Amino acid sequence: MFHTTLFLFALLFSCTSHAADFCVGDLKGPETPSGYTCKPPANVTVDDFVFSGLAKGGNTTNIISAAVTPAFLAQFPGLNGLGISLARLDLAPGGVIPFHTHPAANEVLLVTQGSICAGFVSSSANTVYLKTLKKGDVMIFPQGLLHFQINAGGSIAIASVTFSSPNPGLQITDFALFANDLPTELIAKTTFLDPATIKKLKGVLGGTN
Amino acid sequence: MFHTTLFLFALLFSCTSHAADFCVGDLKGPETPSGYTCKPPANVTVDDFVFSGLAKGGNTTNIISAAVTPAFLAQFPGLNGLGISLARLDLAPGGVIPFHTHPAANEVLLVTQGSICAGFVSSSANTVYLKTLKKGDVMIFPQGLLHFQINAGGSIAIASVTFSSPNPGLQITDFALFANDLPTELIAKTTFLDPATIKKLKGVLGGTN
Amino acid sequence: MFHTTLFLFALLFSCTSHAADFCVGDLKGPETPSGYTCKPPANVTVDDFVFSGLAKGGNTTNIISAAVTPAFLAQFPGLNGLGISLARLDLAPGGVIPFHTHPAANEVLLVTQGSICAGFVSSSANTVYLKTLKKGDVMIFPQGLLHFQINAGGSIAIASVTFSSPNPGLQITDFALFANDLPTELIAKTTFLDPATIKKLKGVLGGTN
Amino acid sequence: MFHTTLFLFALLFSCTSHAADFCVGDLKGPETPSGYTCKPPANVTVDDFVFSGLAKGGNTTNIISAAVTPAFLAQFPGLNGLGISLARLDLAPGGVIPFHTHPAANEVLLVTQGSICAGFVSSSANTVYLKTLKKGDVMIFPQGLLHFQINAGGSIAIASVTFSSPNPGLQITDFALFANDLPTELIAKTTFLDPATIKKLKGVLGGTN
Amino acid sequence: MFHTTLFLFALLFSCTSHAADFCVGDLKGPETPSGYTCKPPANVTVDDFVFSGLAKGGNTTNIISAAVTPAFLAQFPGLNGLGISLARLDLAPGGVIPFHTHPAANEVLLVTQGSICAGFVSSSANTVYLKTLKKGDVMIFPQGLLHFQINAGGSIAIASVTFSSPNPGLQITDFALFANDLPTELIAKTTFLDPATIKKLKGVLGGTN
Amino acid sequence: MFHTTLFLFALLFSCTSHAADFCVGDLKGPETPSGYTCKPPANVTVDDFVFSGLAKGGNTTNIISAAVTPAFLAQFPGLNGLGISLARLDLAPGGVIPFHTHPAANEVLLVTQGSICAGFVSSSANTVYLKTLKKGDVMIFPQGLLHFQINAGGSIAIASVTFSSPNPGLQITDFALFANDLPTELIAKTTFLDPATIKKLKGVLGGTN
Repeated sequence: MFHTTLFLFALLFSCTSHAADFCVGDLKGPETPSGYTCKPPANVTVDDFVFSGLAKGGNTTNIISAAVTPAFLAQFPGLNGLGISLARLDLAPGGVIPFHTHPAANEVLLVTQGSICAGFVSSSANTVYLKTLKKGDVMIFPQGLLHFQINAGGSIAIASVTFSSPNPGLQITDFALFANDLPTELIAKTTFLDPATIKKLKGVLGGTN
Repeated sequence: MFHTTLFLFALLFSCTSHAADFCVGDLKGPETPSGYTCKPPANVTVDDFVFSGLAKGGNTTNIISAAVTPAFLAQFPGLNGLGISLARLDLAPGGVIPFHTHPAANEVLLVTQGSICAGFVSSSANTVYLKTLKKGDVMIFPQGLLHFQINAGGSIAIASVTFSSPNPGLQITDFALFANDLPTELIAKTTFLDPATIKKLKGVLGGTN
Repeated sequence: MFHTTLFLFALLFSCTSHAADFCVGDLKGPETPSGYTCKPPANVTVDDFVFSGLAKGGNTTNIISAAVTPAFLAQFPGLNGLGISLARLDLAPGGVIPFHTHPAANEVLLVTQGSICAGFVSSSANTVYLKTLKKGDVMIFPQGLLHFQINAGGSIAIASVTFSSPNPGLQITDFALFANDLPTELIAKTTFLDPATIKKLKGVLGGTN
Repeated sequence: MFHTTLFLFALLFSCTSHAADFCVGDLKGPETPSGYTCKPPANVTVDDFVFSGLAKGGNTTNIISAAVTPAFLAQFPGLNGLGISLARLDLAPGGVIPFHTHPAANEVLLVTQGSICAGFVSSSANTVYLKTLKKGDVMIFPQGLLHFQINAGGSIAIASVTFSSPNPGLQITDFALFANDLPTELIAKTTFLDPATIKKLKGVLGGTN
Repeated sequence: MFHTTLFLFALLFSCTSHAADFCVGDLKGPETPSGYTCKPPANVTVDDFVFSGLAKGGNTTNIISAAVTPAFLAQFPGLNGLGISLARLDLAPGGVIPFHTHPAANEVLLVTQGSICAGFVSSSANTVYLKTLKKGDVMIFPQGLLHFQINAGGSIAIASVTFSSPNPGLQITDFALFANDLPTELIAKTTFLDPATIKKLKGVLGGTN
Repeated sequence: MFHTTLFLFALLFSCTSHAADFCVGDLKGPETPSGYTCKPPANVTVDDFVFSGLAKGGNTTNIISAAVTPAFLAQFPGLNGLGISLARLDLAPGGVIPFHTHPAANEVLLVTQGSICAGFVSSSANTVYLKTLKKGDVMIFPQGLLHFQINAGGSIAIASVTFSSPNPGLQITDFALFANDLPTELIAKTTFLDPATIKKLKGVLGGTN
């Protein structure tokens, strides 16, 4: 009887707070400003909280000799509503992640292999914050500020990156400017670049107009 | 080949963060405490981010000689989740926006034509903060505090108003008290006004009981 | 005509901000990180904002001689999105709420009858904050910290408890450790308790393995 | 040695997170938008988390036969940064808390003695939500909306009130309008009340002009 | 006596919530992640809530034929903690605000004179959202995304801009890249621009290295 | 002249938003609920954003054969206000991080070497979420829930851990219960453990009473 009473006591609490703990995203459901609707708690298993996609780096045989492998909300729905996400950065020798911003998140980068030269520019005085990071070093890139990473050594460099949002976004300046149909004359007016340079970069990056 | 590799690289990023940038509200979908569900990003066009309803002022031939034209979430679903909204205020000569509050937002008012006498009352010591504003002046009305605006000149006054919420709410004290079926005796008890005054205002404002 | 104009003016405002005021949860709809979808405002009545379930205490004839009666989001959907919830605590003589945490909320407890010995432990230095509370005393239990309540008198003690979240969660340490199928050897390794003690508590609390 | 090692281990953790747990307000220090600066954790005792000021009701021999006894940030600095506060409401027979708002908080009221007629008005359609509450009933008053409480019985009524902010504010409409130096003609213009009524209420409530 | 009692009642409330209403920033005091420390409420006057600096546009006789006049936290300390700020945009004929981002705020732009061609680029698929806005049109620029504004007519264009933060930041891409001491070779590696182009822009914008 | 004008233009923007970008914490200054006061931006260098303390693991020759090396706000003041922090976890063979919670943060763990058996318990139904993680696997531990990590292999295991708060806190259940002066009888009443077991653990963990 002692046993039963406590068990009922446990049941009482169970039903009162059934989804306070987490809200695994249902990517097929509607999205809201706070994230996706929650997968029914009864269907949630430990695998909703585990992600194995960062074990291997992406393919770095491309023009920037680099790859970003995300564990954002779209890949890892367990992050829904949790204010955090991750990515893996692989930089082959000579590899570079061009100037970019994350519109909605602070970034923290931890070098796990090799060395990386990284920098960001403040908005207030265009001050450059530049550092060559060794294995084990951590660097902060505040939200929305332009920053880059370059392999600073002769061998592959790898970093583990974390963001203060499940969906940090990623806007690479070159792609935003040159990989779409924004008219060359508009780009010229708004960047001080000359049309020839713009057209050349559009050609490289797949832009038109 | 150079071109293709980069293009694929761009695609990689595209699908990883497909809705980090915005969440245009689907007003027909369900609402949540954080706002409406998002319109599918593929259906979003620039017109979801543009609103033309503030170009003309509302009709001011009414008892208060004033009109408020909102660009709130319900009119401008692109504001969903963005923490901001707007309105246009037109005050004909003699026009007045009676004492009111916005339950869920701070307000910033910019006079764009004419002059406006505006004020708010603090909750702490009932202190009055009162100012006659000229064209180009900006005034803050902190969240939830009673405030008003009156045309301070002989010609029409116009203001552009912004709120720190996509859905600021608007509670005009007179309407809240006298434009519904709240029993006269209850109003009398809770406002110190006498029943005759209450009944007169109920008559004017459409209230019953 | 005077009357009509104002009435139309009121209608104008009505439709602009139709759900700024509240978002009563529709417990049958989907949940999101910010809460449940809103019940249509037109279907909302005063009863959505009133809850009578705290009038009577729960049954305290159990092993802990105590009962917690919640008014959380699941019981009181009007709290959806409001950042607050309540519970009633009944402690028969000798009653105790064992060590527990609320993963997502600060707690404030007001003794309304009898006296209660309560305490919490800080995470930083394992400091104990301990107090015997009389009727009318209020005590804060900061978010996520282990705490307990014990009836400190010879008669029933009652408290009114409030949380800074509509869904504060409740994790009783004993139940989390011993009322499920977590293998005894894992518990032994992670708690320093010996297997015999663990198995005994599993027996009492309904755990297996 | 076994003992010592663990003890050192504990020390390690202690110093790493020394103030994550709470931030008791130093009311003599500067205030910020997020609250007061924190009292040094080493000076914090359990008494910073305990408040006894709600044990007795305020004096109700006044014009409204009512008293509000607050446990807000200013009285109870342990609430600093916690998103919650309390108050005690005493309503003698005939007592009333006139129409008022809390500019920055949702309110939840629990009747602990007697019965109370309470109501609020929505901003959207001026809808009245009205209920007579018995002992044990809870009612929600959403943020910023006009509401009131009246003793609905023949004996004293008491309520325990909680807010979703440590500093909810309290703006009683009558005091905001009539208990200061706001000129009568401005009040007339912004409330539709006639000057005689205004002057009478100013006389009662201590207003001038 | 009636008068006195109520007056005391008012005093009671006054002291309980003395700074819930606002927190005007003391720009000489320390700053925190939530904003500046508050100016003592007793020293606050209506002028802390009023700003006249947007009445006149800035000087547009510069290389971009444009001027931005901010009413951010630094210019208008009354905005401290309020989640909102403003700016005035003046574009002479041919004027342009080059590609830029606001790292920490959504933007809403209202054209008050002339016409403006504006656009932003999404981070997800580098989609361009482009529109020519007439007087009275409003356009949203979501947080952190690259955007620009160009005078689309033959006469001066003016816009009133609002941000969802008292301190939105402003990072003009050209200035971030070329107006500091970031080495040319690093810029070349991280932008795909050739060194000659970079050096030319550094020359124009005051950069070195 | 062209050069000078633009340069002045840059200066204009510089001074308008001088601290929007970041708020490096001044650990000697006062703390607030939102974090420490900001170091003057002019004194900030890139080293405020770089931390090298995670390069080496802590000493694991202790009773749990494990070490946690934090990069929390106290060690890495650049994290102030950024909503993120890190730690390094070293588990020698047989190593274990006992059951614990982080009162104020979600956790994401990435195994960088070896293999780790990790688990957490939900508050709602005491459900156990248990997984053996290989190198490259990521696991989520939602805020405030009890969880543990055990070395699951025969060699050292290392993990990189991130939290959704600059100051996540860490409450190890055993230390909270047995490493202080909480009286044995109170522990017995609130944990169902017998006094002999409690006294033994107090002896091991340095507790008294």
